[in-house]
Amino acid sequence: MGYGQRISIHHGNGGVHMKRLISDLFIRFFENDVINEQSDSATLKVSGQHIAFTTDSFVVDPLFFPGGNIGSLAVCGTLNDLAVSGATPLYLSAGFIIEEGFSIRKLERIVISMAREAKRSGVKIVTGDTKVVNSGKCDKLFINTSGIGQVEPKYLPVSSGSKVKPGDKIILNGAPGEHGMAILQARMNLNFRSGLKSDCASLYPLIKRVLKASDRVHFLRDATRGGVATVAHEIASKCNVGVDIDEARIPENTDVRAMCEILGFDPLYIANEGKLVMVVDASDADSVLHAMQKVKTGKDAAIIGEITSEMKGKVILKTRSGGKRILDELIGDQLPRIC
Amino acid sequence: MGYGQRISIHHGNGGVHMKRLISDLFIRFFENDVINEQSDSATLKVSGQHIAFTTDSFVVDPLFFPGGNIGSLAVCGTLNDLAVSGATPLYLSAGFIIEEGFSIRKLERIVISMAREAKRSGVKIVTGDTKVVNSGKCDKLFINTSGIGQVEPKYLPVSSGSKVKPGDKIILNGAPGEHGMAILQARMNLNFRSGLKSDCASLYPLIKRVLKASDRVHFLRDATRGGVATVAHEIASKCNVGVDIDEARIPENTDVRAMCEILGFDPLYIANEGKLVMVVDASDADSVLHAMQKVKTGKDAAIIGEITSEMKGKVILKTRSGGKRILDELIGDQLPRIC
Repeated sequence: MGYGQRISIHHGNGGVHMKRLISDLFIRFFENDVINEQSDSATLKVSGQHIAFTTDSFVVDPLFFPGGNIGSLAVCGTLNDLAVSGATPLYLSAGFIIEEGFSIRKLERIVISMAREAKRSGVKIVTGDTKVVNSGKCDKLFINTSGIGQVEPKYLPVSSGSKVKPGDKIILNGAPGEHGMAILQARMNLNFRSGLKSDCASLYPLIKRVLKASDRVHFLRDATRGGVATVAHEIASKCNVGVDIDEARIPENTDVRAMCEILGFDPLYIANEGKLVMVVDASDADSVLHAMQKVKTGKDAAIIGEITSEMKGKVILKTRSGGKRILDELIGDQLPRIC
Repeated sequence: MGYGQRISIHHGNGGVHMKRLISDLFIRFFENDVINEQSDSATLKVSGQHIAFTTDSFVVDPLFFPGGNIGSLAVCGTLNDLAVSGATPLYLSAGFIIEEGFSIRKLERIVISMAREAKRSGVKIVTGDTKVVNSGKCDKLFINTSGIGQVEPKYLPVSSGSKVKPGDKIILNGAPGEHGMAILQARMNLNFRSGLKSDCASLYPLIKRVLKASDRVHFLRDATRGGVATVAHEIASKCNVGVDIDEARIPENTDVRAMCEILGFDPLYIANEGKLVMVVDASDADSVLHAMQKVKTGKDAAIIGEITSEMKGKVILKTRSGGKRILDELIGDQLPRIC
């Protein structure tokens, strides 16, 4: 196989190593028409109906962080995978792997957060599983959430990106990097005097509004592991187009910026849990922006770039200083276990 | 809450502690009409269609054992949860939590087993997720499989058990305890000179044949954690009936019997991964038995007892010696991490 002999932490970071593992191992052996699509969620046909189906395991460390916990993260993450496929999220499952000795009070707080997030988005957690492993055999608690949603046929291209074309505008709903930096701050007990919080949120209400505002939304993706840069690369390769990003137009969180400068990170590669990258027909970009800004999760939305016919498969960053550079794909890991 | 302050290994064994955790915590906060059913899989309505949806996380130790590995177990376990709901299994998801440093060759063997089991039952693994945790933060590999199936309306009662009534016969498809004892043998490197193998298998082909042979199949359940005894208790409490089991009629594996005698286990409480407990109208019991015996997973099928109107909610074991005793619910743990 085209990858190393042992699993490294990089195989889980959303970047190049993980993509190779997925294509060389999982896609190769599970081979079927649906999985080959490699979307955030699979779109299936069950007796004439289009169903979106997705799964995510959450291993975030620490379990509780400013702006959320592993439970709210698990529910929002799976809801968002369904929503960016143009689906109406309907049902979730919840699988718990718990380390012996874990506090039941903490588990209760986490379960309550899951229930709250699910109710907020009008989905039901309908089935579950509980496994307990001996002390030391897992790190406190892991949660898997899988989800089912219903997709209106007219939204199917949103997931495949088949309509993305040169001239389309790229919209981001807010400042990147908040989740990753909030996790790092909590993990290292850093003494930044900041109110930095994870952006962990369900994007379904925002997406619903966007899809109502325009029939020309050509692609939707939540920027999680690997950040906005990784989504930009996904668009470039999946749709075989060039992606131009204008650094000066990217919304900014000053706390994230400060931490990134100190630690040498680039916010564009940092994980988010409430950030949406959209490709919209130029003619509808402003109306979509307008619609987004009415929702809390969209109030800082901005057009950050556009699709081009040059440099196909590449992402070009127009820097603040006015220069241009190729934005590389994420290779090494920035932060493990942020989701 | 009605349970202890910390999670214990017993909270994952399928017995009393786990049932309390589920009802006092998960069912309580996730509260909705579907989860309250507490079936192996949730039956949902998606635009007129009945969909079965289930999830399972697998933490089996060791990962490879006689008769299977964590991959075949994960696929069969989820297929079986769908099949016992009367569903035709259609699609699976696969979520991997991998410890840094895990052998990619081993991962490949596991993935190949998953692909093989899925193909065998005609289901597609359509979506997945990969997380990597640092060395020591999980025990090699955990897998979550969630699944979707389609349920014909006429099979809905099979999952709810609403038609179970006194006089119905209880059928078991083979000797209990093989999976649990095979795992224990592998884990302890016991030097029994036995060909003991896990019974890990997809029950869908068997169930398909059974449902074809009779319209009077009133309940189906795969006997996994907690074994046949736990399913018997589920029937007794869920259907508010008495359950009589005739020990002399229970199919026996001599290797399992030998190990259980030495180690002081009761095969009725040991986990299986290819054992099916059925409740069938007495008039169809023989024809169902006949149909089962034509399939490999059903060749040792036997009528092991019947539903009664006495001792409601209790399970009575008629012992080989001719005496009768109440078969208790599983409280302490027999074997952790067998699935």
